[in-house]
Amino acid sequence: MARSLAIKCIFLAFLLLFCSTHSICAKPNIIIMMMDDMGWGDLGVLGQPAKETPNLDQMAAEGVLMPDFYSANPLCSPARAALLTGRLPIRNGIYTTNEHARNAYIPQFVVGGIQDNEILLPELLKTAGYKSKIIGKWHLGHQPQYLPLQHGFDEFFGSPNCHFGPYNDKGTPNIPVYRDGEMAGRYYEDFIITPTGESNLTQLYIQEALTFIDNQHKANTPFLLYWVPDAVHQPLYASKAYLGTSQRGLYGDAVRELDDGVGQILDRVTQLGIAKNTFAFFTSDNGGATYARVQGGSNGPFLCGKETTFEGGMREPAIAWWPGTIKPGQISHQLGSIMDLFTTALNIAGIKPPSDRIIDGTDLLPNLINGTVNINKPIFYYRGNEMMAIRIGLYKAHYWTWTNSIKEFDKGVDFCRGENVVGVMTHEQMNHTDSPLLFHLGRDPGEKYLIGNTTEEYKGVMPGIMAVVSDHKKKLIPGEPQLNMCDGSVQNWAPPGCEKLGDCLPVPPSHPHKCVWNH
Amino acid sequence: MARSLAIKCIFLAFLLLFCSTHSICAKPNIIIMMMDDMGWGDLGVLGQPAKETPNLDQMAAEGVLMPDFYSANPLCSPARAALLTGRLPIRNGIYTTNEHARNAYIPQFVVGGIQDNEILLPELLKTAGYKSKIIGKWHLGHQPQYLPLQHGFDEFFGSPNCHFGPYNDKGTPNIPVYRDGEMAGRYYEDFIITPTGESNLTQLYIQEALTFIDNQHKANTPFLLYWVPDAVHQPLYASKAYLGTSQRGLYGDAVRELDDGVGQILDRVTQLGIAKNTFAFFTSDNGGATYARVQGGSNGPFLCGKETTFEGGMREPAIAWWPGTIKPGQISHQLGSIMDLFTTALNIAGIKPPSDRIIDGTDLLPNLINGTVNINKPIFYYRGNEMMAIRIGLYKAHYWTWTNSIKEFDKGVDFCRGENVVGVMTHEQMNHTDSPLLFHLGRDPGEKYLIGNTTEEYKGVMPGIMAVVSDHKKKLIPGEPQLNMCDGSVQNWAPPGCEKLGDCLPVPPSHPHKCVWNH
Repeated sequence: MARSLAIKCIFLAFLLLFCSTHSICAKPNIIIMMMDDMGWGDLGVLGQPAKETPNLDQMAAEGVLMPDFYSANPLCSPARAALLTGRLPIRNGIYTTNEHARNAYIPQFVVGGIQDNEILLPELLKTAGYKSKIIGKWHLGHQPQYLPLQHGFDEFFGSPNCHFGPYNDKGTPNIPVYRDGEMAGRYYEDFIITPTGESNLTQLYIQEALTFIDNQHKANTPFLLYWVPDAVHQPLYASKAYLGTSQRGLYGDAVRELDDGVGQILDRVTQLGIAKNTFAFFTSDNGGATYARVQGGSNGPFLCGKETTFEGGMREPAIAWWPGTIKPGQISHQLGSIMDLFTTALNIAGIKPPSDRIIDGTDLLPNLINGTVNINKPIFYYRGNEMMAIRIGLYKAHYWTWTNSIKEFDKGVDFCRGENVVGVMTHEQMNHTDSPLLFHLGRDPGEKYLIGNTTEEYKGVMPGIMAVVSDHKKKLIPGEPQLNMCDGSVQNWAPPGCEKLGDCLPVPPSHPHKCVWNH
Repeated sequence: MARSLAIKCIFLAFLLLFCSTHSICAKPNIIIMMMDDMGWGDLGVLGQPAKETPNLDQMAAEGVLMPDFYSANPLCSPARAALLTGRLPIRNGIYTTNEHARNAYIPQFVVGGIQDNEILLPELLKTAGYKSKIIGKWHLGHQPQYLPLQHGFDEFFGSPNCHFGPYNDKGTPNIPVYRDGEMAGRYYEDFIITPTGESNLTQLYIQEALTFIDNQHKANTPFLLYWVPDAVHQPLYASKAYLGTSQRGLYGDAVRELDDGVGQILDRVTQLGIAKNTFAFFTSDNGGATYARVQGGSNGPFLCGKETTFEGGMREPAIAWWPGTIKPGQISHQLGSIMDLFTTALNIAGIKPPSDRIIDGTDLLPNLINGTVNINKPIFYYRGNEMMAIRIGLYKAHYWTWTNSIKEFDKGVDFCRGENVVGVMTHEQMNHTDSPLLFHLGRDPGEKYLIGNTTEEYKGVMPGIMAVVSDHKKKLIPGEPQLNMCDGSVQNWAPPGCEKLGDCLPVPPSHPHKCVWNH
């Protein structure tokens, strides 16, 4: 026994010595590229007729395409919180209880943000020697305590909120763009987006990514690059070189520039010779915004879009890439979630997920590497504080349905432009808990053909689904909701670093009030 | 001059001698594979989430994918007539004038069929030494004078009409299956399709194709293989080995079997070493039948389906393949039509199209080989005797709109299941000729966002479109409509060869009447 142990010790010592000088033992790098409001159907490889994403299509050809991959929410802030915590928004607090089943996010008048007791992916990766950078939109809170560097990121280039504007800096300040812990300027003042949608921001985001990769490579440091540009979120923008180049108008111009960015990032990794030690994943935070009139993303054959728990609201494009480890040209029908990226990244880094809380994400590596499929894994479709639907295997059951109120709809806000599945797309919040609306997403990805609740198929399937839901609800301990309170004084009047730029604005008096969430 | 001519003559004589013994000079083979009611969105490479068409996806990877390819009609008989004549149905006669803008086809009680004065592709190819075979559904007339061997085909295995049934052979005879000029049996009697959709017909059609290819290869004869199986047309069917293998139910099972068939056909050509001398094209005759409840094809992001002149009714999957001549992995946004297959095939065979009539098809080879795009080429969307819409470039203008009558719709016939674009999907025939409904199919492939007729865009685009339409209408000389008259006595009671099988049924008295076309 002792001799065997001694041999093991010698071997380990040798390995440690060897690894300190050889990249073969280096922790794999992790690149998560998540788009903003891009739809499942925006990729050529997923059926966009314009076929204008050659780099993403190539990434799929070199990796695994996951057509059954989901966001954890049909809106951006909760989705992003879910990715970085591996937990449903109802657990991590990025949701509201002001009204039932309401989508909420973090515009700059929201008081809350990601809480310290939530453990974010970069915090854990730091313990394994990783350096982490977020490039693009954060959206988990803009007050100082909520910013990325307070939650594990080492570097930050981008903005805490959406790039809405321009504002006149009176009632609403223009949104800051940060470099690390301090603002570097503001949208529409220092970082221009013209009324016609011209902006070089995506180019800045690409360059930031390439430089970060170069620097970590030189320093021999494993890294997390969280690349979250926002060019396909309203207001859309693209660099001059891309304007007018797409069949699809400005939206397509922006997609083309982002696609080029993905290509450049993967090319850089390849050129540096670290592709075999780099796991990259591409996805989006929620479905295409069909209400954005013609200039929104495509949700392909799926019903409705952003803000809804129909497939168009939460089914996301997803490609995993890891040359040498993940076989090229594969399709995985594993149900996946952006929360899985948390657990998968931890496993890649050799870190165990926190054991003191429920983690919803599961490790996708077995599915990606061995092609196995865990058929029992559920996908939960939440809208605010309500589980609206669940998918297990090819079946999806709607426990609640709601597009939006008839009042909003009559104002022209249509999350399901040109679609009308009677009795399914409801303008009232309809509770189907006693007899959920069941669809088979294989035969019917568009959720158009209800499986009647008197059919044998329904009776055979629903008990199993109901058992999973019952178990889920029993174990659910909702987190403290962070998106209930709003206050004009918490806006980005005087972000850290504003003094150096002479760009601090006077903070108005505080008037906290309950936020109003219309959808 | 004389010397130069003599040299040319010697060269030509040498070439002819050489060519008689070397396959390098052989006329290229032509394989046209057209599916029945398959939708644009049924292919993995065009965004079907199930991604169950590996052979077609591979064909696209080895050839040119044409995402902007169209049928000439949203229904089968007119589409098939258009392919084989290179002419719009309104010219070749496969349409009706019984009512305005009605879809008509050739069920077995229709009297008419393709006329002798129409020149079909195999007739012309025969002049260049080609041997032609149709395998599958003919649909251009079932009376003896209309059958394939009367119109240029050398061989036929399949049926003249749809495989509806079973009938009791009293009021309606079961549809015959032909081997060349004589019936080989009848559906549901000799060629079984069970109530659960089990049938080995696609396997027979695959085997027929492989044998035909083998035979022509052995005989060193250039060939046209017109492979038109009907397994994804109602009633759906698949072989036992495929039943239950798809995520998509029986429809998907049938797609998988057809996809395998395509793979086997291209593999055979490759194994025989004639791939470089074989042009193959894959497409479908019209959009997926969304009214077929859940068991219909997918039209991807496009509006409505079969029977309509919205994109879902006429946009088709299309792949061209010719190793060594057509570069692999290309996308062509050339607007294409199944009528182009007529002209393209003739050009491949070195034959000039008929000059005594208008041919609508154009030669796609320059687009496929050189990647050029003819941006002025129009696509006309006809329904019966009416031009409903036109596409030029990325713009589509609807001159007439109609889904179907409210009476049919109220009966449950819905060509636009779950869709509702207000003012566009009309249940009355709406004439927009004075101010056509304009869409930009690049930004808006789903025809959901009307371009207002007061916009600069509209005013800039419509005059050019109107000029093309005006010119088209001025030159149009409609053919004699063949789908006006019906008569129970013309059904397949006693097809050629029925005596040998003892399967001639008594022919009832003739009662000719005007056909009723509901849509």
